[in-house]
Amino acid sequence: MDEKTNALVDIMHSFTDAEPETRTGNGPTKGMEDVASIGADRNWKGIGISLLVILVVLSLIGLSIILLSKVRGDRPVGSQLTLDDLFHENFKIHDPGARWISGEEIIYRSWDGDVLKVNTHSNETELLLKNTTFATFKASKFAVSPDLNFVLLGYDVKQAYQGVITELSLVRSVCRTMLTPLLKEKQKTLKEVRELNPPEVSDSVLQFASWGVHGQQLLYIFENNIYYQTDVHSSSWRLTSSGQEEIVFNGIADWLYEEEVLHTQVAHWWSPAGSRLAYLTINDSLVPNMVLPRFTGSLYPRGKEYPYPKMGQVNPTVRLYVITLDGSSLTTELRPPDSFEKSEYYITMVKWVTQERLSVRWVNRAQNMSILSLCEVTTGDCIKSEGQEVNIRHLTSGSWEVSQILAYDEGNNSVVSTLDPFHKECLTCSLFSSRCTYYEAVLSPNYQHVLLKCRERKTLESNTVLKHALIDRTVPKWERRTVQINNFELRLELTVPVDLDETKEYPLLLVLDSVPGGQAVSDRFFLSWDSVLVSSDSVIVARLDGRGSSFQGQRILHEVHQRLGTVDVQDQITAIEHLIRLPYVDATKVGVYGKAYGGFLSSLLLLSHSSLFKCGIAVAPIANWRLYGSAVTEKYFGFPVKENHKYKVKTIVKGNFCVDCLWQISSLLSNTTAPSSLNFLIIHGTADATVHFQHSAELVKLLSASNINYTLQIFPDEGHSTASVKSQHYLLNSVLNFFRSCFKEEEVVVLRTSDD
Amino acid sequence: MDEKTNALVDIMHSFTDAEPETRTGNGPTKGMEDVASIGADRNWKGIGISLLVILVVLSLIGLSIILLSKVRGDRPVGSQLTLDDLFHENFKIHDPGARWISGEEIIYRSWDGDVLKVNTHSNETELLLKNTTFATFKASKFAVSPDLNFVLLGYDVKQAYQGVITELSLVRSVCRTMLTPLLKEKQKTLKEVRELNPPEVSDSVLQFASWGVHGQQLLYIFENNIYYQTDVHSSSWRLTSSGQEEIVFNGIADWLYEEEVLHTQVAHWWSPAGSRLAYLTINDSLVPNMVLPRFTGSLYPRGKEYPYPKMGQVNPTVRLYVITLDGSSLTTELRPPDSFEKSEYYITMVKWVTQERLSVRWVNRAQNMSILSLCEVTTGDCIKSEGQEVNIRHLTSGSWEVSQILAYDEGNNSVVSTLDPFHKECLTCSLFSSRCTYYEAVLSPNYQHVLLKCRERKTLESNTVLKHALIDRTVPKWERRTVQINNFELRLELTVPVDLDETKEYPLLLVLDSVPGGQAVSDRFFLSWDSVLVSSDSVIVARLDGRGSSFQGQRILHEVHQRLGTVDVQDQITAIEHLIRLPYVDATKVGVYGKAYGGFLSSLLLLSHSSLFKCGIAVAPIANWRLYGSAVTEKYFGFPVKENHKYKVKTIVKGNFCVDCLWQISSLLSNTTAPSSLNFLIIHGTADATVHFQHSAELVKLLSASNINYTLQIFPDEGHSTASVKSQHYLLNSVLNFFRSCFKEEEVVVLRTSDD
Repeated sequence: MDEKTNALVDIMHSFTDAEPETRTGNGPTKGMEDVASIGADRNWKGIGISLLVILVVLSLIGLSIILLSKVRGDRPVGSQLTLDDLFHENFKIHDPGARWISGEEIIYRSWDGDVLKVNTHSNETELLLKNTTFATFKASKFAVSPDLNFVLLGYDVKQAYQGVITELSLVRSVCRTMLTPLLKEKQKTLKEVRELNPPEVSDSVLQFASWGVHGQQLLYIFENNIYYQTDVHSSSWRLTSSGQEEIVFNGIADWLYEEEVLHTQVAHWWSPAGSRLAYLTINDSLVPNMVLPRFTGSLYPRGKEYPYPKMGQVNPTVRLYVITLDGSSLTTELRPPDSFEKSEYYITMVKWVTQERLSVRWVNRAQNMSILSLCEVTTGDCIKSEGQEVNIRHLTSGSWEVSQILAYDEGNNSVVSTLDPFHKECLTCSLFSSRCTYYEAVLSPNYQHVLLKCRERKTLESNTVLKHALIDRTVPKWERRTVQINNFELRLELTVPVDLDETKEYPLLLVLDSVPGGQAVSDRFFLSWDSVLVSSDSVIVARLDGRGSSFQGQRILHEVHQRLGTVDVQDQITAIEHLIRLPYVDATKVGVYGKAYGGFLSSLLLLSHSSLFKCGIAVAPIANWRLYGSAVTEKYFGFPVKENHKYKVKTIVKGNFCVDCLWQISSLLSNTTAPSSLNFLIIHGTADATVHFQHSAELVKLLSASNINYTLQIFPDEGHSTASVKSQHYLLNSVLNFFRSCFKEEEVVVLRTSDD
Repeated sequence: MDEKTNALVDIMHSFTDAEPETRTGNGPTKGMEDVASIGADRNWKGIGISLLVILVVLSLIGLSIILLSKVRGDRPVGSQLTLDDLFHENFKIHDPGARWISGEEIIYRSWDGDVLKVNTHSNETELLLKNTTFATFKASKFAVSPDLNFVLLGYDVKQAYQGVITELSLVRSVCRTMLTPLLKEKQKTLKEVRELNPPEVSDSVLQFASWGVHGQQLLYIFENNIYYQTDVHSSSWRLTSSGQEEIVFNGIADWLYEEEVLHTQVAHWWSPAGSRLAYLTINDSLVPNMVLPRFTGSLYPRGKEYPYPKMGQVNPTVRLYVITLDGSSLTTELRPPDSFEKSEYYITMVKWVTQERLSVRWVNRAQNMSILSLCEVTTGDCIKSEGQEVNIRHLTSGSWEVSQILAYDEGNNSVVSTLDPFHKECLTCSLFSSRCTYYEAVLSPNYQHVLLKCRERKTLESNTVLKHALIDRTVPKWERRTVQINNFELRLELTVPVDLDETKEYPLLLVLDSVPGGQAVSDRFFLSWDSVLVSSDSVIVARLDGRGSSFQGQRILHEVHQRLGTVDVQDQITAIEHLIRLPYVDATKVGVYGKAYGGFLSSLLLLSHSSLFKCGIAVAPIANWRLYGSAVTEKYFGFPVKENHKYKVKTIVKGNFCVDCLWQISSLLSNTTAPSSLNFLIIHGTADATVHFQHSAELVKLLSASNINYTLQIFPDEGHSTASVKSQHYLLNSVLNFFRSCFKEEEVVVLRTSDD
């Protein structure tokens, strides 16, 4: 095993001598997947025993000031971190994408790009695929077959579509052509390389492709239908036929299910032995279509339509099927529990429990009722698990959350005994003498090993290239604080220059989280544009996990119910008011930055508390929640009241003030004194499929009608995340320059006339 | 006749004692109509005698410095002109829209909004329609019937469409519902008011409505078909049935014919006695459709498609018909001359010569051949007028142009004798002792009177409200110069602060014309945003009529053929180089502004001569001519070469370098030193139907790929001209602030630290 391998396999350790302690790493990375979970992961507590889980518990109570080990004394070492650094290969965090393929073996991709297999017992390493193969096929993704004989290679989306310039799949980016070259690099031949295509279709662009659970079971999705092969050489078997582009989806999610319900494109689940496949059929035929316009790339650019249910609009219907893969084509629908039969519902979780039983979570549209059911494949009946309610025991309690159930060992209940669930033990606490505080963990199939991915700031031993690159740079330091608001202790993080001089005054930038129910403050290591601002421009960056943020228990999480845009705004204000009292913060130079939900908050903050802020940026802001996706919006605001069958953008729905509160605020502003001196930058991609450009368009119309200054930076035909590196660089450069200009020292205008 | 009447009827004077002199007012106002006339008005010289015209000739040789009479000595009077002034009612130029209704009578609209009839002989004035009627019906347009018994009132477009928020006619704005209230205000009753609707359609939004030539002949166009009524009470008669929305147009122009060929929406012509109607049928069924996206106003905004032939794409086909209005429905097609039968052509002019003959101009698609034909209604034959070529005599010659033929008096050839065409007389030179130098003229039906609209800067007697408003303001002064380039004497105009001090240095702003073949320098009075910049910010504004501009003869006009973006750019550079040598011009503060073609030029100037300019604005720039309308683009660049059936944006078509020269230039820039310090503002409405937003989208992608700084200001769902006053104000304010910031005095940054 070479040196780099150590990087990813931080520890492969049998479960011994672990001591009970709750101060360990935590689970999820922040991002969209935390937002819109529709209460699913919030309810694990209630289902503790029924699912019989191994818990890897998290907590983030630590408030210690973490100093980077390379900082010696008070003086920083190395040059300032720049934007170009962030785009340099050496400054990228390398994720090896490691996974268990047996009880003892791991497959991962090295920093060089080779795919390697390592035996955790013998330390033996085998080269499976050379990095040159990726280059040859311009492939970016790979998947090794369960029998280790073949690999699927994923091509770039844009390449696949290069010939078709007038039709672009702007919505989902995971379409790709797959290849099945022979594995085993030692054979030195790639003769068997061929494209994976549905019967009688060549050069198809697949929506999804993956291996099954054993041998060479192969599944792919094309034109919203599922195809199955028992092995790479067998013929394709089409499992579904109802698929219609952007109308009926089989085994794959539509926009709503991908972005707001399942948080993955995958809407199918293999049974443990691979003999059955459960899949969703999502029908969007009655869902209104949104148009994403297109401006560039052809003489007559054509937009793209796709179903997107906005608040209060028709949702897709969803059905859950199980198909038997023995050739019988036997398909059974798993019917919702009786109480849901006549109402609209979401399916938020599907999990095989045994070979013939699945655990399925059904949530009503209002998202105030959820049923966890046990479904029988043979009958199609789903019965409420809470039927056995007298036997339920909560395994966890406290102001923290179970973020992920890693595994459950049916045969051996010694790790977390279901017989004594109150006896919990920390599996990782003693391992590193607390060198790492942010883990992602993957258990081996036989539960004898755990693969830990350490993303804590201090320990980057694994990413040696990055570690080496950072030696020459003054990386900021992070400080953890708490803010007391309404009996809540809220997490506040400051990123400060490593040579902070408390006798001087620094500008302050508040960076907001992009989703409600997210986590802005964690021990996860990252470098981003704001690190540059701290390092190069001596700005202090603040992040607060206010009310509505997650991993601090249900109370804080649910504080924003029907109050999004109110208490969360108040918390940010309180944090700012707290921070500008610090002697080293310049209260005249406070900026704010937010994207999506954060853009909504930053717009609110700038318009309603303009005196606090000198400037601010809203990226892809959710300006009006009525225009946003149904599942997330209705979760916070409820189902909207329609008036005379008309959508009314300026109407206050009772109790839902902040659905369009920017309109309310700006109408107040235009009647009184508009902050025309406001320094407000709005950034949006015109092909954003998540937060439509519509939001910014309505917002700037509103601002110009209220005579409020703004600057709009658009990215033509870019989505919610800017695709090209050029655009990313341009965007971040705009953001940096905006704050640099905002925070620059005062100017004295010296009049120069020709008389001088 | 009240005082205000004098305003518009500057002179009603019989044609006596006029002396021959060529230095008079000129004709056309600048605008699109001058641009794209496809050689039609350029060829009047060649058809002199065959049409037998009365000429009102123009010339603009005068280079005198015009001082406003209210400026006394060197000191300015009154306060600075502001942007708000321009939006104030009192600062609007009132156009009474006067027209002859008989040999002695004129109808016009007073400043108050009343419609009045005045007898030029007796001076008797009659009130036809009170301004309150307009207010009652929220009408903005009106037309009085030939028998003076009825009036058509036009409603606002947006009102008509208010109920239909998902479908908006973004392309053409002239759709309106018409009313026919009874005229004769003395009856004090408007009982007969009713909507003008096609049979069995109520609340229709008409595309066009107007009176015929006698009695109450009424014509309107609905769903691209022509309807006719013999009088207001008779039933409607549908003259055509082939009309299809955005596909087949009868009597009304499609986008191409309206914007680039006819320069009016009207594509039908009454015969002199009103017994026949000639009309075009324009078929766009094979023309590619462009999509105008829509962002605001509804949950799921829908874009609008309409045919728009870009350079080299399929053009609409056009046919010319004459229908007899005696009830016989007799329709005759006027066939193109033999040589045009098998080629693509435009019909650029239709004019009735007698009751049964029309003069029609046919131009081939390449626009290098044009045929003026005489068509017989009875047979449908069109015969080349040049058949009588031996009889043609050119009536005019010299470095000036005939812009309009006002009238031809068949009975009396004494005004300009067709027998002695070289004896020309100026009809207006002696009238005012040259108080006015810019006229628009309308002759009375009996050729005994002429209605002159004086728009010269000095004489604003008529617009007393405006005149009075201007007394309190420091209005700029205008200076005329010439620049010598390649043996051409080019017109250059400077707008300078009225108190210009030649010992000081002033910033210089170059304002470019929006169309090739236009006229930037004329004696026409106007106030615009740049007047504010001169008056309030002491900026000198320069306008040049370089090569390619009109009304200076064919040589200058044709200099840009296949050279657009080259010699015209060179002329502007030469002008700037000339001006920055003036002692009172600050060479370090030069800006440039242009819209459409002017935006193309300003982008070119900024990128290719960045050292000359400190900043610049391009509004709705034509970034790439391949994306612009066929008729105008091919006129300058020829029909494009296709490569492998593919459109190639970055290919240089031989000899047509500047079709996409911005791409050429920027590729040069990104390879060398990009002017990243460039201060470049691009402004565009996203629903611009003339210069699509596509242009700016491609341009900003190009700029960001080349790492060139820019700022983009978009106007969501606004067209080529911003519709709302709010948006206009916001746009102009942005423009003014941009140049103010660019031209402000140098700053010295004083570092302030907490140690101070």
